[in-house]
Amino acid sequence: MDKIGRYSFEEYLKMVEAFHGNVAPGLLLGGIMVDYAVSQMAAGVLFDAISETPACLPDAIQLLTPCTIGNGWLKVIDLGLFAMSLYDKYNGEGVRVFADPEKLKDWEDISIWLYKLKPKREQDKDRLLAQMEKAGRAVLSKRIITVTAQHLGKTSRGAISDCPECGEPYPKKDGAVCLACQGQSPYVGK
Amino acid sequence: MDKIGRYSFEEYLKMVEAFHGNVAPGLLLGGIMVDYAVSQMAAGVLFDAISETPACLPDAIQLLTPCTIGNGWLKVIDLGLFAMSLYDKYNGEGVRVFADPEKLKDWEDISIWLYKLKPKREQDKDRLLAQMEKAGRAVLSKRIITVTAQHLGKTSRGAISDCPECGEPYPKKDGAVCLACQGQSPYVGK
Repeated sequence: MDKIGRYSFEEYLKMVEAFHGNVAPGLLLGGIMVDYAVSQMAAGVLFDAISETPACLPDAIQLLTPCTIGNGWLKVIDLGLFAMSLYDKYNGEGVRVFADPEKLKDWEDISIWLYKLKPKREQDKDRLLAQMEKAGRAVLSKRIITVTAQHLGKTSRGAISDCPECGEPYPKKDGAVCLACQGQSPYVGK
Repeated sequence: MDKIGRYSFEEYLKMVEAFHGNVAPGLLLGGIMVDYAVSQMAAGVLFDAISETPACLPDAIQLLTPCTIGNGWLKVIDLGLFAMSLYDKYNGEGVRVFADPEKLKDWEDISIWLYKLKPKREQDKDRLLAQMEKAGRAVLSKRIITVTAQHLGKTSRGAISDCPECGEPYPKKDGAVCLACQGQSPYVGK
């Protein structure tokens, strides 16, 4: 295994550094996962993606597939699992790739990292990255999945009008006032 | 106004096409918003970002700042508002930039797009993009914000162990079994 997507490991890690800010191990294992998942999809299938964690994996998906958060083809469903799926955006059929505990047993540094068996500063990052590169798909498993109808497609926001409280344009279906004015604002004092 | 971040409009739109898949108007107005917000932050401040919509804006933030979904510096809090904020990641102080209805009145194509007054196929995309480039910050307003403590920083997932039901590594604090086994899986039959 010497490629991630159409990139060499070195090229991919450069892209990771530019986008993600540093060569995080989760981006390397994540990239190997995404590459594996893509290889399982029939050519020409328009696919969407789910990341089952917000940590690292979404960036590997955004770097290696056409799916991004902003174009709606990548969704993060936070299950706390280091797993992701690609699926036909029309019928939901696809593949899920995950870190497999049985297979991880043979790879000490990867296990220490994934299970957080040592504080980060005590982990040997170079050895970990080398082990991930050596292991490749050997620590992963896949299974066929179908995404439920509720998660397929984009939900339209419907009509937009100005919120009678704050004045900003908001989706009318959210209620009489916008969600921020309903108390969901992340800011002090709204 | 002839730059978005350190890029010319043309360079930025090429980046948008490569990452987002097409030159979506939301990425152009979004880019102008992010550029405006960045210009309001003191040099050297390490900032995080919030996008108040999952549509388009997160990609402008990911292209123009160090903040990505996967590195945790960008959060999407879906309020349905075309607005975003940057804030000091330690004390939460920052700036929120939003599309301002009062100012939008002078810009017909931008209003038609934002309020969805015409179906997309009847909108003149070239004219819309040209109007956004001409308007620049003239359709935007900003205000000083402080992000609430609950939204600051990363929450640790704590200890990881194998889920007794599916066997995959999961954060123990999620419960006796992982969230997927608790019924939150997006796949048919778990």
